[in-house]
Amino acid sequence: MPSSRFLKTPVEPFRVEPGLAPEEILARLERISFQGRNLGLAHRVWRRMLEDRDLTIFLGAAGALSAGGLRLVIAHAIASRYVDCLVSTGANLYHDLHETRGRRHYIGSPRVDDEALQEEKIDRVYDTFASEDEFVDNDNWIAEFTLTLEPRPYSSREFLYRLGERLWTETAADGILTAAYRAAVPIYCPAIADSSIGMGIAQARHSRAGAASIDVVADVIESSNLVIASGGTASVVLGGGTPKNFINQAIVEAEYYAPRIEGHRYAVQIVTDVPHFGGASGSTLDEALSWGKVATDAARVTVNTDATIALPLLVSALESQAAAIRRQRNPPAYEVSGGMLVRGGRAVPCARFDEQP
Amino acid sequence: MPSSRFLKTPVEPFRVEPGLAPEEILARLERISFQGRNLGLAHRVWRRMLEDRDLTIFLGAAGALSAGGLRLVIAHAIASRYVDCLVSTGANLYHDLHETRGRRHYIGSPRVDDEALQEEKIDRVYDTFASEDEFVDNDNWIAEFTLTLEPRPYSSREFLYRLGERLWTETAADGILTAAYRAAVPIYCPAIADSSIGMGIAQARHSRAGAASIDVVADVIESSNLVIASGGTASVVLGGGTPKNFINQAIVEAEYYAPRIEGHRYAVQIVTDVPHFGGASGSTLDEALSWGKVATDAARVTVNTDATIALPLLVSALESQAAAIRRQRNPPAYEVSGGMLVRGGRAVPCARFDEQP
Amino acid sequence: MPSSRFLKTPVEPFRVEPGLAPEEILARLERISFQGRNLGLAHRVWRRMLEDRDLTIFLGAAGALSAGGLRLVIAHAIASRYVDCLVSTGANLYHDLHETRGRRHYIGSPRVDDEALQEEKIDRVYDTFASEDEFVDNDNWIAEFTLTLEPRPYSSREFLYRLGERLWTETAADGILTAAYRAAVPIYCPAIADSSIGMGIAQARHSRAGAASIDVVADVIESSNLVIASGGTASVVLGGGTPKNFINQAIVEAEYYAPRIEGHRYAVQIVTDVPHFGGASGSTLDEALSWGKVATDAARVTVNTDATIALPLLVSALESQAAAIRRQRNPPAYEVSGGMLVRGGRAVPCARFDEQP
Amino acid sequence: MPSSRFLKTPVEPFRVEPGLAPEEILARLERISFQGRNLGLAHRVWRRMLEDRDLTIFLGAAGALSAGGLRLVIAHAIASRYVDCLVSTGANLYHDLHETRGRRHYIGSPRVDDEALQEEKIDRVYDTFASEDEFVDNDNWIAEFTLTLEPRPYSSREFLYRLGERLWTETAADGILTAAYRAAVPIYCPAIADSSIGMGIAQARHSRAGAASIDVVADVIESSNLVIASGGTASVVLGGGTPKNFINQAIVEAEYYAPRIEGHRYAVQIVTDVPHFGGASGSTLDEALSWGKVATDAARVTVNTDATIALPLLVSALESQAAAIRRQRNPPAYEVSGGMLVRGGRAVPCARFDEQP
Repeated sequence: MPSSRFLKTPVEPFRVEPGLAPEEILARLERISFQGRNLGLAHRVWRRMLEDRDLTIFLGAAGALSAGGLRLVIAHAIASRYVDCLVSTGANLYHDLHETRGRRHYIGSPRVDDEALQEEKIDRVYDTFASEDEFVDNDNWIAEFTLTLEPRPYSSREFLYRLGERLWTETAADGILTAAYRAAVPIYCPAIADSSIGMGIAQARHSRAGAASIDVVADVIESSNLVIASGGTASVVLGGGTPKNFINQAIVEAEYYAPRIEGHRYAVQIVTDVPHFGGASGSTLDEALSWGKVATDAARVTVNTDATIALPLLVSALESQAAAIRRQRNPPAYEVSGGMLVRGGRAVPCARFDEQP
Repeated sequence: MPSSRFLKTPVEPFRVEPGLAPEEILARLERISFQGRNLGLAHRVWRRMLEDRDLTIFLGAAGALSAGGLRLVIAHAIASRYVDCLVSTGANLYHDLHETRGRRHYIGSPRVDDEALQEEKIDRVYDTFASEDEFVDNDNWIAEFTLTLEPRPYSSREFLYRLGERLWTETAADGILTAAYRAAVPIYCPAIADSSIGMGIAQARHSRAGAASIDVVADVIESSNLVIASGGTASVVLGGGTPKNFINQAIVEAEYYAPRIEGHRYAVQIVTDVPHFGGASGSTLDEALSWGKVATDAARVTVNTDATIALPLLVSALESQAAAIRRQRNPPAYEVSGGMLVRGGRAVPCARFDEQP
Repeated sequence: MPSSRFLKTPVEPFRVEPGLAPEEILARLERISFQGRNLGLAHRVWRRMLEDRDLTIFLGAAGALSAGGLRLVIAHAIASRYVDCLVSTGANLYHDLHETRGRRHYIGSPRVDDEALQEEKIDRVYDTFASEDEFVDNDNWIAEFTLTLEPRPYSSREFLYRLGERLWTETAADGILTAAYRAAVPIYCPAIADSSIGMGIAQARHSRAGAASIDVVADVIESSNLVIASGGTASVVLGGGTPKNFINQAIVEAEYYAPRIEGHRYAVQIVTDVPHFGGASGSTLDEALSWGKVATDAARVTVNTDATIALPLLVSALESQAAAIRRQRNPPAYEVSGGMLVRGGRAVPCARFDEQP
Repeated sequence: MPSSRFLKTPVEPFRVEPGLAPEEILARLERISFQGRNLGLAHRVWRRMLEDRDLTIFLGAAGALSAGGLRLVIAHAIASRYVDCLVSTGANLYHDLHETRGRRHYIGSPRVDDEALQEEKIDRVYDTFASEDEFVDNDNWIAEFTLTLEPRPYSSREFLYRLGERLWTETAADGILTAAYRAAVPIYCPAIADSSIGMGIAQARHSRAGAASIDVVADVIESSNLVIASGGTASVVLGGGTPKNFINQAIVEAEYYAPRIEGHRYAVQIVTDVPHFGGASGSTLDEALSWGKVATDAARVTVNTDATIALPLLVSALESQAAAIRRQRNPPAYEVSGGMLVRGGRAVPCARFDEQP
């Protein structure tokens, strides 16, 4: 080996063998280069999050992950407490609800005639199709559900808890919203108005003035207080978007009111966007360090690939270690059902920040 | 010329000459291939929007466009009514406010030591730096402003109008918020909670329970009613994100309540994201057609490049035709100042959808 | 299920379970969306190539795959005849030779100080480092090897066979060149001059005028004749570049001289480049159809991800089916050692095309 | 301005005005962020190359630039000596020849039915179409031309000079090959076998054994000697591929034989590929520094955009300064016509490296 501080750890070429388990594939990828290495490292970093104590692990979900077939992977990660809090786009929750209600997305082609789809009332998401009539039915279902709520402002977390509860009662079917309801894991949706869930709520208001509204400012406060209440935080971000920023913003706001907060101890992001156009979705975890979103010594890794490739592999690998993870991890229970979030028996208020000297 | 229905219009190789004006460069680009052609077409399509009658032109702004140096281009497009309604991320409005208040963003390097930046309290956005202390000062300014408002729910449009008004009163400086205030052009920010503006409002609530809140559901209704009130719509989308979806969602919702609505007549998007990962930011305008977001016969074009390259060119080219545009275009005036948006003398309600048979 | 020709096959959400084997993960990915689906389909298409009769499977290798840790995966695919012919950039063969000679690449960081690397004579490939002194030693080794050859023109295929032979004799170590030598699988390197192998040959000529030269035109003819001699062709392309075009050009040229040739029956490409800038690396397999590079009814799939993620997974999954593949497949043996390639006992000339009416 | 070494130069928001000339647009872009800034810097760096003395400026051309409509921009840059040496893919030279011979590429759509194109013998390059029959005619023309050459090995530089000469004699039409012929600017095509030019030469050999062959190793030596003969080098790289590597390899090889060589003094690259997958096309100019391809203090800038957007703008801006450039620049004349390249009266050999202590 040539002598240089820069030449310490050789790349170990990946050796193919029959019967490699996913966790072994990821371990071998960790010792090669480029995005293969990063995917291997993502597994290691997520595994280390699960060994750490009193950590709140945020999962950010942007991109058409539910329509794309990942909703049961995310639901599984929630049910198994591989993550402790979900921050999602509205679309992922809406598409989840669509399938939990027994409707499906369909395998299609990105090179279809979109005019023919429009005529047949089929909505396309790249290579995935869905029925617009069924979507309209969902919107009405959401509007009707909203009208059952006491007419007052709700944080998105409280609203989505009740939505999951209603879904579970009605369907007893697996999905993200129902898994979060059953596991009492909070979900935030900072851009809920920018989704068909927001459209459903708007339709409720069309029917009855003063129907339930969403107090997005309460989300800002509560999520920061959740950071302050935790012994530390970690993030697994899929695809950027509002969830990525919201998870990081909660840190920045928490640092303002509780200066001991020091940024995520662990950060994994699986993104397809790139840094050099300046958008937040593609921004690096090094950049996040400048803002204090990520701790100086945080274990952090970006994997540049589609979540539909990375997430099934990562969660399958974690699942093979589920027994060990359960032994190591004993995450605090939440009460998510009310206006006030409770974590491990302690209130996490949404009206004011938990200032700490 | 070989005989084939597919071989009709030859590519005209770009000819370099001294003294080409931007609009002439764009006209020549239109006759070549790939993204050069698309940029040329974008100019033509935007120009045609401005010739059409009674059209509402939406501008979507995502990505760090204000920090990146485009805030005066956007402000100019608003002041000149090259667009009629802005839908933006919170970050673009916040960074605009930062500069309107006399602070600056700075030229930096993406290969800097981010730990050193963190120590010096400098926040990085790719190659652009800003002072964290100044950001904290902005947050406080927003909190104080929020406390001056009557404590009730505001649509983001009404809130941002008042924010622009306050900024103009205090600074008399050019920017997006002040241009929109002065031109009475509505701004929507569907994910306002996911930004430092949302953080500032949250800090107001920390000071005083019941400070002003944002009614994002009102935005959903009002924006759809704006579509219904218009003789037709067009969109210029920069960078995807929540603005892209919100502008299109307004169409879909409008179609539900007013079936004569038929999707944007013209659509330009300048994006760096790609379609094949399924995310909304990179989705094609053909896909949008399946949803009815874009009319079947709409003039539409996607330019895959950074808005910091495309937008200055496009608006500079429009500016050279400003006199002709003014003659052709006589867009309806808005009243933006109150709880109720007014367009061309007619109310655009935010409480209920304007159902039309 | 709503009634529409477009809504036939539902997306099956991925279900996580402990102990999923790679081939089962790929089978489940095939039923979801976006690039996950495409990766699953790539496995199925490659598997079907191996079931087809008398097919020549080309593997194209561009990008720093050897430096990146994939050389033993590629070597394994060659040794197992999961592919029948390799077309590679020079860099992949050079970096393979580097490691076969006992040198290593090293795990580094893309955010290192490159000036410090230059001072320490360390060459960087994104996150991977190597010693420049060792590279110089390789160049000299190649120059010396070249001087041992009879001074005449060689096709890149013949030259690389002899290079593999020499490497195996000297090192008895696994690698791409040695695996191809031992399995008598032909390798073409159409841009050999644009690599350190070309530099090594140039250095041989510096030492002795008239040292061996590379007859790249012979490669063009021989590779087309290999297509003509085959019962059909398939391609697995990693990363675009000259290998992608060369494999397809061989088809186009073969069609000119043997009109019964109909394009690849199967085509898999794993690329990170995109179509919309017009470059060949990112071009779609639909576009390839217009050229006749791919048969009209070919099974074809593009996976947009890094080969360092996709290839280990795909070959690991094939490896678990190795016994079945061996039973199904009995590919013709090559003689690669001389100026004339021989396939299944029949000569594949490199001087003239095998015209067929 | 806050006090920090990191906060020195404010971003100057782009100000729109009527009548902005391209060079003024680029100057204003230089003071904003992201890729707009980089495009502005690329103009400045290219302009500085033209002010420097005794510099050889290499232009690398990969991607379908000729088919895409840039061939006359490149021809203009050659004729005006904004560059001194072209390194190109074969495709760009072939598509140039196609148009110089009076054939055209056509404006098409990327969403066409490729099976219909195949039936009508139309070849597609993203949104650009061409007639396959005309391509076959080109191939035959190249074969016939090749048969007129004395049957011996040619460097690609000598072969392409003669090809340009023949084209000019026959057509007197503007294009890359004819401009380079007329301006006596050398062209290298390191992967000439991987193109339809290579196919045409192969077809010549099919007609007559021993037709002219291409000695790509001579290109390696001659291009390095050109670097050694120059007072310094600069590179403008469009799109990566073999030209990017070949231009840099010439530096690395030159440094080996003439240790005073220190890498490009200036480097501009306009690429759409990204660094994080490890491929050479997307590699950064910082990485190039580790290899010594670029001098430690080189002015260097990467612009992440399509060359069909950037190149017309950049060359149009240079063109407006043509008189000043001509005054400043007096580049050495070449003799390109023979087996031996001559630069400024001094031979640049292709048989052995010009060793210098």
